[in-house]
Parts: sequence; structure tokens; C-alpha cells
Amino acid sequence: MSASERTRVAIVGAGPAGLTLAHLLHRAGIETIVLESRSRDYIEGRVRAGVLEHQTAQLLYEIGVGARMRREGLIHRGIELQFGDTRHRIDFEDLTNGKSVVVYGQQEVVKDLIAARLADGLGLHFSCEVTAIDPETGSAPGSRVRYRDDGGVERTIEADFIAGCDGFHGPARAAIPAAELNVYDHVFPFAWLGILATSPPVSEELIYANHERGFALISMRSRTVSRIYLQCGVDEDPATWPDDRIWSELRLRLAAGVGKEIVEGPIFQKGITPMRSYICAPMRYRRLFLAGDAAHIVPPTGAKGMNLAIADVRVLARAFARYFAAGSIDLLDAYSETCLDRIWKTQRFSAFMTRLLHRYDTYDPFERRLQRAEFDYLIGSRAAAESLAENYVGLPFAETAGSVT
Amino acid sequence: MSASERTRVAIVGAGPAGLTLAHLLHRAGIETIVLESRSRDYIEGRVRAGVLEHQTAQLLYEIGVGARMRREGLIHRGIELQFGDTRHRIDFEDLTNGKSVVVYGQQEVVKDLIAARLADGLGLHFSCEVTAIDPETGSAPGSRVRYRDDGGVERTIEADFIAGCDGFHGPARAAIPAAELNVYDHVFPFAWLGILATSPPVSEELIYANHERGFALISMRSRTVSRIYLQCGVDEDPATWPDDRIWSELRLRLAAGVGKEIVEGPIFQKGITPMRSYICAPMRYRRLFLAGDAAHIVPPTGAKGMNLAIADVRVLARAFARYFAAGSIDLLDAYSETCLDRIWKTQRFSAFMTRLLHRYDTYDPFERRLQRAEFDYLIGSRAAAESLAENYVGLPFAETAGSVT
Repeated sequence: MSASERTRVAIVGAGPAGLTLAHLLHRAGIETIVLESRSRDYIEGRVRAGVLEHQTAQLLYEIGVGARMRREGLIHRGIELQFGDTRHRIDFEDLTNGKSVVVYGQQEVVKDLIAARLADGLGLHFSCEVTAIDPETGSAPGSRVRYRDDGGVERTIEADFIAGCDGFHGPARAAIPAAELNVYDHVFPFAWLGILATSPPVSEELIYANHERGFALISMRSRTVSRIYLQCGVDEDPATWPDDRIWSELRLRLAAGVGKEIVEGPIFQKGITPMRSYICAPMRYRRLFLAGDAAHIVPPTGAKGMNLAIADVRVLARAFARYFAAGSIDLLDAYSETCLDRIWKTQRFSAFMTRLLHRYDTYDPFERRLQRAEFDYLIGSRAAAESLAENYVGLPFAETAGSVT
Repeated sequence: MSASERTRVAIVGAGPAGLTLAHLLHRAGIETIVLESRSRDYIEGRVRAGVLEHQTAQLLYEIGVGARMRREGLIHRGIELQFGDTRHRIDFEDLTNGKSVVVYGQQEVVKDLIAARLADGLGLHFSCEVTAIDPETGSAPGSRVRYRDDGGVERTIEADFIAGCDGFHGPARAAIPAAELNVYDHVFPFAWLGILATSPPVSEELIYANHERGFALISMRSRTVSRIYLQCGVDEDPATWPDDRIWSELRLRLAAGVGKEIVEGPIFQKGITPMRSYICAPMRYRRLFLAGDAAHIVPPTGAKGMNLAIADVRVLARAFARYFAAGSIDLLDAYSETCLDRIWKTQRFSAFMTRLLHRYDTYDPFERRLQRAEFDYLIGSRAAAESLAENYVGLPFAETAGSVT
């Protein structure tokens, strides 16, 4: 027996994309149901991205889910870049007419959005396994999602549209025939070893370092928790990185800067992040729309993953709002192209940062020295620094003709 | 029997670097002799670069060899970029506070400098073969160049210093022990087929095009002569490019723009230009100083070769002037490092333009699409356009403590 519900938009995935979309659509008076394969505890504890672009933070404030971020988020007005012995600060406020970014963990954004969703008493189902996505049923309302709920009951949602916000490995993109998608996939020849440690951040701002031993990034999640990354091989096992090795490697790579000031503390999470660029196009198939990691992933160097996801659903929410208010499909038809232009530019920036800051074993001496020239040019040219800064704080959102926030 | 002369600086090579250096040193009251392996006719007819940076042109004006350039040179206030179907103008004047470039052939610069040199009645020997360069003889004045003059007579120049301005294949760099030089060498996986044709330029400004069939560049040497380049394979034989094929290929690659307006005319020169980046460091060994192509070459995409050469000798002339006026070697000791910082930034720009505009057979679909994103970002961001423009019109000359122009 299959229990059936009906809604306007079935949203698969309760990450930043799915939850922000649900919230935006609720504000536009459009009914949704959100399905999440993981438990609430899991997604509220999952550590991922942590840098919000200026506009991403503004959007969350504007739609009423930014109160805690305003209290607890750390406003960053610049970043430090280090290349060998040379350090340079990129001053966002100076270079972008006052913009900045907010350091606030993705799981905190998720917590705030879940709290809002539940406070509104709206449909949000955890621990349910999507078993089938049908992007076009041929009969009203038009599309269908089947899933098994947390009690093992088979259920069906009939919806006008489906939003696939279920990440890179989720079922939404897989429901689209391969022949309908152009796939752009590029794997960089290194990875990041990432740790979380109870260690006070040694810098007020993020430090991105290119050292001959490899890239290092010092970041933070709070005033007591450091988030640290080290370039490593693509196939490395975190077990080959005992805590001592991590701290000593970090000191070496940051020797010209804050290396000596690093305070060791318990490392409570350790993992390998692959460096990959992926885009599928179009981001739509019939009544199924993809958003966020379901459609594209970026290497983490530019801190763009969550920001791209929220930018996507801002466009998608406006398109749905226009459709349900006026019956017009123009913005839905424009959705993919509207998003992809900015997504490609953001891929460009993520690749630029990745290439600038990592050690490539395959580089010839010319290419290696040229990488340094890129850094030297960047720190000596206001135009080049403005370019980096405008991308880091976030390129302007893609504009569409709609006006619903 | 060997005839011997004595001078302050023996200059090997009468290209833009050697002749400009000789002129600058003459203005500073320093005696030089210039040796050139080719005939005067040859170097005055040799077609090479043709774009002068803002400051390069200013320098030539200021030192009194710019009168004909001012009359005949074409001031270009921008360039056109084309990617697939999209065209965009980079407006130098707007983006760089009024700067521009001057299109004026390298051989014209050479003619003007030769005329000045001969009018001054100073040493300039054509068609002489340098047979030995000794960067440090151990006895005064310090260094020696041996050569065979145009009559077959063996001659020697004893000099305080030698300036190697004899191009990439000249004897100066070869006189430096290999172990004393760090060499950075990178060959791009394509070449340019270049032609000169009696054909009125179809555009007032240069057009750089990235087309799926490959790069194309439309340039001009005058109001009646076009200089045109097409990306081709590294090992191609110009004989496989009959005139018809060149014109039809050009029309195809510029189809979205001026393709239809191209006026075919007699092609009177045809050649293959390799795309290579090369730097040797330091640019000095004992009393021998390298300048221009003798020390570094750039791919021609950014039109930087002659400009770098003249920038080098500006620094070198100041260093010699300081030495001969005050006995101080500080600027001579700083010469290489002073030049190399700007040279590497210029290599960076030349590589950026090369990568932006050429078709790479090795690119995966992601990299290919990313190249388009680079273009789209460039035409949508003022900071990015300013960065391109400030490089094209020329980064600021390297500044040293000297003051002699």
C-alpha cells in the first residue's frame, strides 16, 4: 500500500539548497514537501563549507533566517595569501566597496533553516529513502517522487515540479537520461586532508598558503575550533597522517608566517576532500530541476559550493513564483541558462585559486615560476586584487525578470 | 693581424635592444660600439613585432627618435576580442586612464635608431661575425669581443662591459657557462602561420579571435598592408598553406565578425612562428649583460617581445650611467633582478593571452568550456578588463634609483 500526498514542489534533499528553496517558496505562498535521506542529527552535525558570500549572508538575513548567524558568524573583511616567504592581505572592504564574507558553518545554516521550517509546521521528512523520481508522469499534477519513510512505509508525492537538491551522489540527477545531459568533469591531481581541531585560530582571517611542500589553509569554525587543510595525494589514507605529522607539516608550510604560533589541540575529525570540478547541463529535465551539488561541484579552494547552491535556488524560487502566480513558464525555461553563466564564472575562479595555490608535480620549471609570477602580479596590481576580491565576496547574483525574494 | 679598438660598452646586436641602449648611453655621454651580424638592408627590412606599449613609445619620443613614429605610427586605443560568436572591445583609454599603444613596425624603429646613430657619427658595424666573447679578461678594461668585419678582417674590441643584445640565437648567452644560468623553457603545443599581404585592414583595431578552428589575429602594418596570423600545428610547412587556404580559413575563423569584409590581396610573406616562453636567469655573467631576446622570449600573443627588450635596456643604461658617473656598481648588480620581476609578470600576461585565445587539442570538455568562462568573466568584469588592459598597454617600467633617461 502506498500513501500519497500532493504538493506544488517536491524538494529532494534538506541541505542548504533544498531548505533555502523550501523557505523561499513558503514566503511566496507555494507549498512544498522536503525529503531528506539522512537523519536530522546527521545533517545538523555534518561539517562542510563555512564561508558565506556577502550576498548569501544578506539573503539569509532578508528572508528571516539570519538572526543567529548575525550573532555567531564571524565577519571576515579580508584573507591572507602566502607564497613561499611572502605574505599579502587581500582587503575585501577596500577592494569591493565595503563587502565582506561571513564565516558560519554550513551545518549551522542548515540548523537555522530546519528550525524555521519546523516552526512553520511545514513538511520536512528525515531518514527517508527516495526510490523513484519520475520527472514527467503525463498526468496532473505532472511529476512524482516515491520514497520509503523512516518507518519503512512506501509513500508517493505527486507534485507539479521536483527540485533535485540532493547533492552530487543523490538520485535526482541519476533520474535524468544520460543522453539528455552534457557533463563537464575535471579532477585535479591532488586532494585536501582536512581536520577539525580544538585549537584557537592563530589568525583572525583565513590564510591560504602555497609552499613548496604543498598548499595549506588555516580556517576556523569558531573562536576555539580550527579548520585546517593540507594538500595531499589523491589516494592518501588519513591513517598515514597521525596528529603529530599534521601539526609538524602545518608548521613547515606556514613557517614564513604564523607557523610558530600554531597551538596544537585535539583533532576530532580528519578526512580527505577530493578536488573536482563538475557541471551537468542543462540543470533541468522536464519537470525536474537540479540545484546545488546535484548539478555541479567546485574544488573547495574558493569556498563556493554552498554559495552556488543558494544562488541556484534563489533563481529557481523566482521562476516557480512566477509560474504559480502568473502561469508563465519563461523563467523556468530560462533557469538553467541563467544559473550556468554564473556557475561557469565561479568554476573559473575556483580553478584560478586552485592553480594559484597548489603545488603541481607535473609542472615544468617555467610553469612553477610562472605560478609565482601570478602571485607577484596579484599583490602588485589593484585590478588583479579587485578581481580576486570581487569573486571571493561573490559575483553579483544572476538577475532574472522576477522580483520575489 | 688583429685590429683593436677600445670602448666603454661593446654592444652585440643592432636590434631594438642594442640600438636603443647605444642611443641611451650616447645621451649619457658613454661611448659604445655596436656590432651586427646581418646587413643593414636585412635588419631594416626584417618584419617582426609591431605594437609599442604606451611607455615604450613615450621613451622613444623622449630620447629623440620618435618623430617619424609620431607621423606614421597608428595609435590604437583598444583591441577587439572575439570568442565564438561573441565580440568585445577592450577600451584601453577608458580602462587605463587614457593610455594607448602604437602600431609601428619593429623594422621602422630600427631604421629610426640606425639613422640617429649614423647621424651622430658613432660606431655601428654591420655584417660582422662575432667569433669570441670574453666576459672577463682579468685585465683592464675588463672584457673583450672578437669579430670578423664585413671585409673579412679579424678585429677586437676591448670594453669595460659587453651588452648581449643579439637575440635568442646569438653568441652572447652562449658565452656564459651553462652552469651559471637557470633556464626556464616552455613550448606551447601550437604555432602561428603569419602572413603579410597587400590588403587594406578590415578593422581599425587588432582583432584577436578564439574560434573552434583555432586562433586568428588580424593586425596591420599600415593602411594598405595587413599582418595576419592563424593558429597552426607546430610542425606545419607553410607550403601546405596556399593563399586560397589562408583566406578561406581566415574567413571561417572570423565569420562572426569581419570575416565577410576581408579583402584578399597578394601575400608577399609567409612564415611559421613557434610559441615559446624562455627565460635565463641571471641576465648577467661577470661583465656581460644580456638584454631582450638574448635573455628571454615570449609567445607573441601579448605583443611583448620588443617592449621587453626596450624595458631591459632602459634599466641597463641607467646602471651603466651610474657606474661611469659615480663608480657605483649597485645598479649593475641589481640589473638582473630589477628586470626579471617585470619580465616574469609579462610572461604571465603572454601566457594568459595565449591560453585564453588558442584551441588546445589536449583540453578536456571542462577545460574547453572553462576557457569560454574566462572570456565571459573578462567581458563582464571591469576589474578583469582593467587587468588585461594595464598589461597590454604595459606594466610600469621597473624603477631603479638612477635618473638618467
